[in-house]
Amino acid sequence: MDFLSLFFTDFIKQLQSPTLAFLIGGMIIAALGSELVIPDAVCSIIVFMLLTKIGLTGGIAIRNSNLTEVLLPALFSVITGIVIVFIARFTLAKLPKVKTVDAIATGGLFGAVSGSTMAAALTLLEEQKIPFEAWAGALYPFMDIPALVTAIVIANIYINKKKRKEASDSAMQESFSKQPVAAGDYPSTRQEYLSQQKNPGDNKVKIWPIIEESLRGPALSAMLLGLALGLFARPESVYKSFYDPAFRGLLSILMLVMGMEAWSRVGELRKVAQWYVVYSAIAPFIHGLIAFGLGMIAHYATGFSMGGVVVLAIIAASSSDISGPPTLRAGIPSANPSAYIGASTAVGTPIAIGFCIPFFIGLAQAIGG
Amino acid sequence: MDFLSLFFTDFIKQLQSPTLAFLIGGMIIAALGSELVIPDAVCSIIVFMLLTKIGLTGGIAIRNSNLTEVLLPALFSVITGIVIVFIARFTLAKLPKVKTVDAIATGGLFGAVSGSTMAAALTLLEEQKIPFEAWAGALYPFMDIPALVTAIVIANIYINKKKRKEASDSAMQESFSKQPVAAGDYPSTRQEYLSQQKNPGDNKVKIWPIIEESLRGPALSAMLLGLALGLFARPESVYKSFYDPAFRGLLSILMLVMGMEAWSRVGELRKVAQWYVVYSAIAPFIHGLIAFGLGMIAHYATGFSMGGVVVLAIIAASSSDISGPPTLRAGIPSANPSAYIGASTAVGTPIAIGFCIPFFIGLAQAIGG
Amino acid sequence: MDFLSLFFTDFIKQLQSPTLAFLIGGMIIAALGSELVIPDAVCSIIVFMLLTKIGLTGGIAIRNSNLTEVLLPALFSVITGIVIVFIARFTLAKLPKVKTVDAIATGGLFGAVSGSTMAAALTLLEEQKIPFEAWAGALYPFMDIPALVTAIVIANIYINKKKRKEASDSAMQESFSKQPVAAGDYPSTRQEYLSQQKNPGDNKVKIWPIIEESLRGPALSAMLLGLALGLFARPESVYKSFYDPAFRGLLSILMLVMGMEAWSRVGELRKVAQWYVVYSAIAPFIHGLIAFGLGMIAHYATGFSMGGVVVLAIIAASSSDISGPPTLRAGIPSANPSAYIGASTAVGTPIAIGFCIPFFIGLAQAIGG
Repeated sequence: MDFLSLFFTDFIKQLQSPTLAFLIGGMIIAALGSELVIPDAVCSIIVFMLLTKIGLTGGIAIRNSNLTEVLLPALFSVITGIVIVFIARFTLAKLPKVKTVDAIATGGLFGAVSGSTMAAALTLLEEQKIPFEAWAGALYPFMDIPALVTAIVIANIYINKKKRKEASDSAMQESFSKQPVAAGDYPSTRQEYLSQQKNPGDNKVKIWPIIEESLRGPALSAMLLGLALGLFARPESVYKSFYDPAFRGLLSILMLVMGMEAWSRVGELRKVAQWYVVYSAIAPFIHGLIAFGLGMIAHYATGFSMGGVVVLAIIAASSSDISGPPTLRAGIPSANPSAYIGASTAVGTPIAIGFCIPFFIGLAQAIGG
Repeated sequence: MDFLSLFFTDFIKQLQSPTLAFLIGGMIIAALGSELVIPDAVCSIIVFMLLTKIGLTGGIAIRNSNLTEVLLPALFSVITGIVIVFIARFTLAKLPKVKTVDAIATGGLFGAVSGSTMAAALTLLEEQKIPFEAWAGALYPFMDIPALVTAIVIANIYINKKKRKEASDSAMQESFSKQPVAAGDYPSTRQEYLSQQKNPGDNKVKIWPIIEESLRGPALSAMLLGLALGLFARPESVYKSFYDPAFRGLLSILMLVMGMEAWSRVGELRKVAQWYVVYSAIAPFIHGLIAFGLGMIAHYATGFSMGGVVVLAIIAASSSDISGPPTLRAGIPSANPSAYIGASTAVGTPIAIGFCIPFFIGLAQAIGG
Repeated sequence: MDFLSLFFTDFIKQLQSPTLAFLIGGMIIAALGSELVIPDAVCSIIVFMLLTKIGLTGGIAIRNSNLTEVLLPALFSVITGIVIVFIARFTLAKLPKVKTVDAIATGGLFGAVSGSTMAAALTLLEEQKIPFEAWAGALYPFMDIPALVTAIVIANIYINKKKRKEASDSAMQESFSKQPVAAGDYPSTRQEYLSQQKNPGDNKVKIWPIIEESLRGPALSAMLLGLALGLFARPESVYKSFYDPAFRGLLSILMLVMGMEAWSRVGELRKVAQWYVVYSAIAPFIHGLIAFGLGMIAHYATGFSMGGVVVLAIIAASSSDISGPPTLRAGIPSANPSAYIGASTAVGTPIAIGFCIPFFIGLAQAIGG
């Protein structure tokens, strides 16, 4: 009773926070047909500045902290990233009208992390004055990369198995070598991650190029740059005079853009199986709860803060918006991008920001208080 | 005597203010052939931030204030917006070599509001430490929309009348139906605002789509978004850390761009009747004085501040630079854009910013002091 | 001994400063294949803001200072700019496989000034709390323009001489008038700076258009605009609230871009004679030392600060990145841009920022301390 009332008061208060209010505002003005456009160049530089700032915060914090504290939460991030993909593989993929490769790619996208969703969570925790480890944002790559790698690896194992089966089924038929490699409906133009194949059964997935591609993405490389500068240089002066004060304001613009983007993607949902919508609405909570549970273990074992547990939960609840899609497109060329991107942007991200952040903050306060 | 000396000292001092100095600087470097270019993406985001900030200020102020105070100034804004169009209809339109539809469109543009001119006025009032109602910027749409609607409606009534006359004149001639609808010299590709017509006399102007188009424009929708967020959310933290401190600096860049833009449009003036230049130089003062007079009534009746009266006068003196032109182009397709945009950008806006703002501030101080 | 230890401690400390750390970070992430891109529009507005800020600082400082102090450093800037071009003419141009016009153009580029390198020097001096004249940044055009003018003039004199020689050599041969004017290998499409020629020997270089083109470039016109506003207007409010606080942060982004740009140009070095690389690595130190020496004269003669001497040295050590290249391309169309731009961006600029700034600051401290 007390929990619920506390929770709802908090929820309403958080919807009024600039971060969520701009997200909702963006959806509303897009729904009303506003011609407002935030230029792409502005979005790019905002993403760069937000992730550089998160990296700098993490780097400076790690430089001044005990590295052993980071170990357990980082391990739990890796585990969560991998588990999320397997959940999609064994739930979403089994549903009618859902292609297995599309489901795996969707799992990869939901396992990967959205920098802007994480930035929103960090800001809301600050506004609520809930303390969290300054290096919490640095957990990002520990969940992001394992999720993408897992998705691409199991998608390609599935494709190979299917192909071997088809090959033996059609042994008497026309030479297999003329058939396209990808089994799905979509053209496969990039297959960098697949080793040079002599025969179909020989397809091996190289893991390192997937990791490399993830690390090179604009969001993650901005964050790792910030992390390295925070660790090895003395960026405190620009951090305090520039990256930190601009953070919330820039985030408000980005939230507006994400709200408008979410609304504009709603139309795409009609083209894909309705199960993607159901999955995108439920998955952020399930993923968040798994990470929240693991975070609680770290809370009791090593004193990981309740704020840190919320960050871990939100990283899990978020789905990648910038780096994830191109990596998946390259890694699983036969999956349909409008299946995984549409549902994630139009449903998953607004749910993660607008519902999961207040929910997990409320949960942490109810448990911790 | 005392009035004049006070006025001129002030005038010089205000030309040195960053806002006006950057405007003049922009004109000078453009005149000297500078290759400096401020990218479009930067201009868009500056306009977004300025108008969001004005909206936020207004929304927060209205939330904390007595709504009845706003009524009289808002009503006077509507009246001024409508009157300005009729002035153009009965003065500019009667002049030699001026097409009636072009004159009405020009009136609509001068009745509509420039967010950047208003931002300049608000900044100069602050610099001069003249208090004004925080919601004064929210008067913008109350003048902008009525002016655009009035211009489009009376332009189309005029076009229809003229057509009916032509139709009866040429009753014996070739079938009217093959003739283009628009009477002017310019191609009419968009006629969304005209109802489906069965015969020429049937042309009715739909008012709601014009209002909708105005509200959807990038400038007005940024402002209304800010207003709504200010009213219903708690944006104080980003307002204080981001939108408010950046306001003057961003405005200085926008003023520079407007100065360069004004200079680059001077060439266009040669192509249109010289009466447009005369009108653009005089109209800002006439419109401002009408609004100033109405504002004084509100000053004595409901205690509307002298600073607020200046804001009302400058809103009236300004001519729309962002949202107005596309709305008019769609609403009065037969009017010549280079007639109304050229004169407004090259003459009207610099006069409004560089002369009307100091003039009305001086007037307010002389009366109020 | 004491000098060296002081120098090296300082050097390491300065590499950790945000300015240099972002430059190095940019090179590293580019080398690692990061897909991070800072949009061009963002780079343009950053350059505009940095140079406007430097101009404003200079203008406000000159308004409040004794103009005679500026004379000697300004004269030394002019001398250094001219001398640098002649050094290239009589060293680089004499080396094997180096075309004379290419060498002169390279000299012009190294004599001209990089606003971002200068901004980095000013920031590092502030971080080290070494005082310098606020107008020191205003020395920029006094070195930049003479260098470009000298390079273009002596390149064209050389081309004309060569042509006269060829003309007399081939007097018996086919009519000269059909041959292209430029003697080099590259197509010459723009020859605005050459007077209309009746016969080859008549080629006269007009100096004023070169100066005009330099002044009109985006970097220099932003700086001169700031200078004029600082001198004649009262821009202190936007200076303090916007241009000054944003300076270091924006510079950090620009340094990152320059680091990435430097790395991406390394490939171009293979296409040109290796002497360009040697020249680009040594020249910044030589040029800086010449200016440092002249600056010391001003230090003893008129009390020019040691910080100011460092600024003068860095202006000399830097090579132009924004305005210089297009001016040289127009003025010496027969020179090969990839010879002078590649070496300057990939080698000269990183050396000037990463090595010369710490070196000259260390030198000034060792001498001054």
